[in-house]
Amino acid sequence: MDQTAIKNTIFMRTLRRESCERPPIWLLRQAGRYMPEYRAIRQKVSFLELCRNSQLSAEVTVMAVDQLGVDAGIIFADILLPLDAMGVGLRFAAGDGPVIDRPVRASADVDGLPTFEPAEKIDYVLEAIRQFKKSRPECPLIGFAGAPFTLASYLIEGGSSRNFDKTKLFMHKESAAFHKLMAYLARLTVAYLSAQKSVGADCLMLFDSWVGSLSREDYEEYVLPHSQAIFEGIKGLAPAIHFGTNTGGIIDLMASAGGDVIGLDWRVGLADTWARTPSLQNKCVQGNLDPCLLFAEPELIAKRAKLLIDSVGGKPGYIFNLGHGILPGTPVEHVKGLVQFVKSYRPAKGAGAVTPESVGKI
Amino acid sequence: MDQTAIKNTIFMRTLRRESCERPPIWLLRQAGRYMPEYRAIRQKVSFLELCRNSQLSAEVTVMAVDQLGVDAGIIFADILLPLDAMGVGLRFAAGDGPVIDRPVRASADVDGLPTFEPAEKIDYVLEAIRQFKKSRPECPLIGFAGAPFTLASYLIEGGSSRNFDKTKLFMHKESAAFHKLMAYLARLTVAYLSAQKSVGADCLMLFDSWVGSLSREDYEEYVLPHSQAIFEGIKGLAPAIHFGTNTGGIIDLMASAGGDVIGLDWRVGLADTWARTPSLQNKCVQGNLDPCLLFAEPELIAKRAKLLIDSVGGKPGYIFNLGHGILPGTPVEHVKGLVQFVKSYRPAKGAGAVTPESVGKI
Repeated sequence: MDQTAIKNTIFMRTLRRESCERPPIWLLRQAGRYMPEYRAIRQKVSFLELCRNSQLSAEVTVMAVDQLGVDAGIIFADILLPLDAMGVGLRFAAGDGPVIDRPVRASADVDGLPTFEPAEKIDYVLEAIRQFKKSRPECPLIGFAGAPFTLASYLIEGGSSRNFDKTKLFMHKESAAFHKLMAYLARLTVAYLSAQKSVGADCLMLFDSWVGSLSREDYEEYVLPHSQAIFEGIKGLAPAIHFGTNTGGIIDLMASAGGDVIGLDWRVGLADTWARTPSLQNKCVQGNLDPCLLFAEPELIAKRAKLLIDSVGGKPGYIFNLGHGILPGTPVEHVKGLVQFVKSYRPAKGAGAVTPESVGKI
Repeated sequence: MDQTAIKNTIFMRTLRRESCERPPIWLLRQAGRYMPEYRAIRQKVSFLELCRNSQLSAEVTVMAVDQLGVDAGIIFADILLPLDAMGVGLRFAAGDGPVIDRPVRASADVDGLPTFEPAEKIDYVLEAIRQFKKSRPECPLIGFAGAPFTLASYLIEGGSSRNFDKTKLFMHKESAAFHKLMAYLARLTVAYLSAQKSVGADCLMLFDSWVGSLSREDYEEYVLPHSQAIFEGIKGLAPAIHFGTNTGGIIDLMASAGGDVIGLDWRVGLADTWARTPSLQNKCVQGNLDPCLLFAEPELIAKRAKLLIDSVGGKPGYIFNLGHGILPGTPVEHVKGLVQFVKSYRPAKGAGAVTPESVGKI
């Protein structure tokens, strides 16, 4: 009964590329620091404590869905939780972002990484998914995981990075060990996403957030086979979203690697890219307002949202989103206003649509 | 006499899109911290002292040209020197990058920026150019300046930035003041580049390093007119290079804004992009190896350099370079090896060339 209701939501219908009256909308990092209620919870618990607390994680997930009125939830969690389970010493240093105390620096470090069942070691995320689905059975829920390259970059750099030079050095100089690490992460990710599906996730998303730092050659040689293995591993379980930032130069390769939906950031023209990329033709596309735009006046936000929706021209399979996560300090009213606008705006079908024939630029 | 010699160099011939036996090569940040001789100088003087010392700046410029054997020099300087001349309190904090003590945060701050002649206030760069040309009259020299958006981002953020949220907020909310700031910076830049040409620069380069953080809409509305004004302002003086990073989604717009050469970073396929972008058809293209690749084994560096050169297939107007500056810690021998490879390798004409017809991807 619930499954039928879920299947008929605008989010799930769009994932099947059915023609809908408007694009569904959800927002990357829709539960986060920009919300006063979230900050109040974070006064009491650390970020990792919040992630490990299934009840609080489910609550925060529900809070974002209810407050914003978005068409899907995304379970509150972090892509680095599998690294916590690996025992490499994951910490979130205040203001500094994630730190890995025992980074992967040599082939032996890769061999030393433990084999484990995500369903056991990251059970708190699964329990949060169960609780969300119990509380909001009619709302589609997105489960997610970090992609091998993005996880490997944290493991090798020991945290965030600007140039990913250590990661690339390891990739180029210790290619066999790098491939072994990527294959290990891919296997883990298949198991983790499958477990999320088994407890109720309606859609699975792979975050390859930093893959846009790579050249086409590096992506093809060192990353694509492993991302592909993940999409093959979860095939048929649930619709899958494949997302990265700065990916304008490799989006065709990412689409070839897999995913029913490709997430684009704001640095590319969404409708143009969709129209001119052969490997995107049978896929959905998600994106791509600049998160910084949410600081601007509501009139400009609505103007740009309208421009984006009009450019798609009612083409089935378009999911409205930002190009990356909502930034801390973003006015909550602006976020709510954007959701209301997208839910109420009805584009003229075909108006302003970009077709392969009309693409004159790039 | 010298001018004829300069005109006949492979670098200047390529800028005129003449067919040459190989691509010319120079490297972004070819004089810098990766060189022990540079670090020895920096033991004695700060970065700003080095920039303000014409003799040392010229020496460092010559050093890179002589050691590497590249086909062009680029005057040792920093894109932020005009900000120093503005009196906004530019400092280079050790390890933290540039800091602006009195950032632009309001319309009144824009109005308060001083009018001055770069030829007077930044005369030390001009003197360094004179000294280089005296010392190496046969070597083409690139003069350069930061582009308005990139300079504005430092002025508004007060330093480097990850998301450019303050810059974008100012741009969206204080649009009139932002345009005024951009126009001010464009006028200054035209004067600065013209002065560099008048003392001997053979080629002028505009660094819009961070413009790839913008959506197409923001680039078109807030940036393009001002970059265009610069290229119109320096038209006919010298061949001009227009460079940015992360620009895969706006490269057609950047090319429309101007420049005889468009610099690409490693995140895009260079030959593909050149072949399929109409506004690039009558321009030269420069790039685009990943600077991180220079940490890898010489065999892999040569393999990727060969792949890049072969993909261009001898098309006139290609300048070999990295996609961004050489990183600190890069082995000097690898850099020298790359230059030697590019200078000795002779691609089969047309072999592996990407033509508009053969473009199957993206």
